[in-house]
Amino acid sequence: MKHTKVIEVLQSDKLLQPVLVKGWVRSFRNDRFIAVNDGSTINNIQCVLEDNTIDAAIQSRINVGAAVAIEGTLIESQGKGQRVEIQVSNVEIEGDADPEELKLTILSPKRHTLEKLREQAHLRVRTNTFGAIMRVRSKLSFAIHEYFQKNDFYYVHTPVITKSDAEGAGEAFKVTNLDLNNIPKNENGEVDYKEDFFGGETNLTVSGQLEAETYAMGLGQVYTFGPTFRAENSNTSRHLAEFWMVEPEVAFCDLDGNMDLAEDFIKYVIQFVLDNCQDDLEFLENRLVQEDKQKPQAERAEMLLRDKLKFILENNFKRVSYTEAIDILKNSKPNKKKKFKFPIDGWGADLQSEHERFLVEKHFKCPVILFDYPADIKSFYMRLNEDGKTVRAMDILFPGIGEIVGGSQREERLDVLKEKMAALNIPEEELWWYLDTRRFGTCTHSGFGLGFERLVLFVTGMGNIRDVIPYPRTPLNAEF
Amino acid sequence: MKHTKVIEVLQSDKLLQPVLVKGWVRSFRNDRFIAVNDGSTINNIQCVLEDNTIDAAIQSRINVGAAVAIEGTLIESQGKGQRVEIQVSNVEIEGDADPEELKLTILSPKRHTLEKLREQAHLRVRTNTFGAIMRVRSKLSFAIHEYFQKNDFYYVHTPVITKSDAEGAGEAFKVTNLDLNNIPKNENGEVDYKEDFFGGETNLTVSGQLEAETYAMGLGQVYTFGPTFRAENSNTSRHLAEFWMVEPEVAFCDLDGNMDLAEDFIKYVIQFVLDNCQDDLEFLENRLVQEDKQKPQAERAEMLLRDKLKFILENNFKRVSYTEAIDILKNSKPNKKKKFKFPIDGWGADLQSEHERFLVEKHFKCPVILFDYPADIKSFYMRLNEDGKTVRAMDILFPGIGEIVGGSQREERLDVLKEKMAALNIPEEELWWYLDTRRFGTCTHSGFGLGFERLVLFVTGMGNIRDVIPYPRTPLNAEF
Repeated sequence: MKHTKVIEVLQSDKLLQPVLVKGWVRSFRNDRFIAVNDGSTINNIQCVLEDNTIDAAIQSRINVGAAVAIEGTLIESQGKGQRVEIQVSNVEIEGDADPEELKLTILSPKRHTLEKLREQAHLRVRTNTFGAIMRVRSKLSFAIHEYFQKNDFYYVHTPVITKSDAEGAGEAFKVTNLDLNNIPKNENGEVDYKEDFFGGETNLTVSGQLEAETYAMGLGQVYTFGPTFRAENSNTSRHLAEFWMVEPEVAFCDLDGNMDLAEDFIKYVIQFVLDNCQDDLEFLENRLVQEDKQKPQAERAEMLLRDKLKFILENNFKRVSYTEAIDILKNSKPNKKKKFKFPIDGWGADLQSEHERFLVEKHFKCPVILFDYPADIKSFYMRLNEDGKTVRAMDILFPGIGEIVGGSQREERLDVLKEKMAALNIPEEELWWYLDTRRFGTCTHSGFGLGFERLVLFVTGMGNIRDVIPYPRTPLNAEF
Repeated sequence: MKHTKVIEVLQSDKLLQPVLVKGWVRSFRNDRFIAVNDGSTINNIQCVLEDNTIDAAIQSRINVGAAVAIEGTLIESQGKGQRVEIQVSNVEIEGDADPEELKLTILSPKRHTLEKLREQAHLRVRTNTFGAIMRVRSKLSFAIHEYFQKNDFYYVHTPVITKSDAEGAGEAFKVTNLDLNNIPKNENGEVDYKEDFFGGETNLTVSGQLEAETYAMGLGQVYTFGPTFRAENSNTSRHLAEFWMVEPEVAFCDLDGNMDLAEDFIKYVIQFVLDNCQDDLEFLENRLVQEDKQKPQAERAEMLLRDKLKFILENNFKRVSYTEAIDILKNSKPNKKKKFKFPIDGWGADLQSEHERFLVEKHFKCPVILFDYPADIKSFYMRLNEDGKTVRAMDILFPGIGEIVGGSQREERLDVLKEKMAALNIPEEELWWYLDTRRFGTCTHSGFGLGFERLVLFVTGMGNIRDVIPYPRTPLNAEF
């Protein structure tokens, strides 16, 4: 007999028919009720054991965490909380879980802190919270692909190992095959990268944008979705050394089109999880409600998780120029009362997290798209405006998360781009191929990068980015 | 007026209505016919210019490679080869392409070798061949996600940077943030990895399998689809230092289930591209036909590209045990006539490419799944059979490609796994978390890895793996 996934059993109407499920014991109450979960859904199937149905030796091995195969008959449930349950006829133990050993792990049935769960990241996916997060993460990933594919974008795998560090600004990890105990040196006493695997210095990518641009010039509309790396020593709840980024790039698209795309895209994927992750979102929402009960009133969330997601769908993102934003901030109460750590006294300053939060959470109370930033605080490839001092950049700021998207219309004019690179000492030889896109059939084009984990944070309501990726990489931590 | 994608224009029935397209000039014949491509499809839209419609200065800039915006009226085409065309009313040049400069690139309208195209990988996607390959690659990627998501698998992002090198066998790239010109040393004179970003030695992953297994033990059915790395010095047409791999992992699934899954999966994604990439496949098929005309009869393909793909769909993969395969090979003509470079004289030998090709292309003439390999030539995590000498491994061999899938039922028994690791000197401390999956609720489970680029090779009919990934990384090459 083939086994059936729990998600299917729970929706099945094949009452009084035999059924086989395989999964892990989540609880075993009163020597009678076995809750089995197989990961296909957050919901367990209740398996009801009558007296003497199974061997006592087997019964004694039905422990939390054990892998079991349970045969029985599907019946309407007598109890509350589930529509159907299984009247057990046979139990096989596929894999034991010794309660004494289990006690030492986060699988033991008691409350563990998220920090503790992180130390056993290989087991935490077996908990309700992390099962829910990772299912939502998977569905969100798929929604991203579906959105772009439906809209005739092509998926491009930009390289992870790269020689160019134009964007890295020293924050790129090095990749090497050299023996670090015995680094070959050239006649000048410097590392002889000619001896290395790629015959040159190589890094882990900090962004696939430049390569994606070359592909947009051929395929028109492309997107990347892949891992990205920063050797940035920031131990915060919002930074990872390895994270996944989504980077669409569109030919013949200006900054307005770019903002339209980003907003439409984000709304699509949020709608997708609302439609496809109802049980997991409900669980995560309740989790937050419980968590909030421990907090003082003022720190509690203003909206339930799913209401917050619906709010995003139902409201236009507020589009505000950097210059307007500076005016608002300069005249804001916290600025006048000197409550900002970085006071705003004029045009040109980079916005800090406190400013972004004020704009999004206090002033506009909705997602905000800031655009037309000062050229000096943005990257070399962003298109210079006619004013000569701002660039066609845009950042999307989300409540509780801060920057979730950063994008721009790209500088398509070869001469302007070269001037900018020269001013920043970016050697043309390094980016000859990038410059070629401006040499042959250059055109207006735009794109953005979305930090995938920040989106997962927002959608799941989790507070630490380490809890929305299976195996987080942070300073001093690359376990598993 | 908003512009319309060429793929939509070509299917449009809005005859006699105004239309705006934006794209790149592929050809300009008789001062009259502009073929414009925007990457959305391999097909161009023909734009017909009447005399004196546009300024001579503009007309002189309509060169191959230039980016143009063309307005006009959609009309039924008078010529052969297209249903509709655009009667031009206005042309704007978005970006020039100087014919003299273009001559120096692969965009110049003449035949270039694939080797030459590789040197300008940033431009090759603008050619018909690479546009087609990369659109097919994108669709194949999506088909992979769709298959697993439809079948209730969850997508897992396993880490790229990892401390464990259990599988790497020295073929993993090192990742570091240390200054290679000034490596910190500890008191023993060895590299002091404590000073490194992660506080220890780290590598680029060679497989996400072990981490995927931990996730299958929670979510039941998972898959990875991400970049994988090998610092292997093989300059062949089938190896890349950076490639994408698909790795499903399924709890409560044995080797038979694993073979069923792999076959069903491959057939699904091939059917998907047959359904969704008709124009690109037709182009690639014709390309091969042309290529074959240069070859002697004996070396020509036996089947057209799409017939080869359909053949995969219509036939069961032949399942053959390693032991049977050895018998067939031992008694084969090439073996008896000493035509194999590595003669087969007994059980236990690893199969070489020549043997695999004989089995697939000469003997069975269809995809073959070889299973139950000798334990000695396979990985430590594969389940030992009752015979004590073979393991529940399987490889899928494809005509022209060789191994496209490698998988196994995993050793779920803690004691057997530990013995195997000890025999191979794999320290338990390094894989404590992996062993935990066998300690708590272990179960029968299986999975496989599919080298994505090999699948793209097969589907596109290309001969060199460097031509099916945007920016190939190989020994001494990490350009762009």
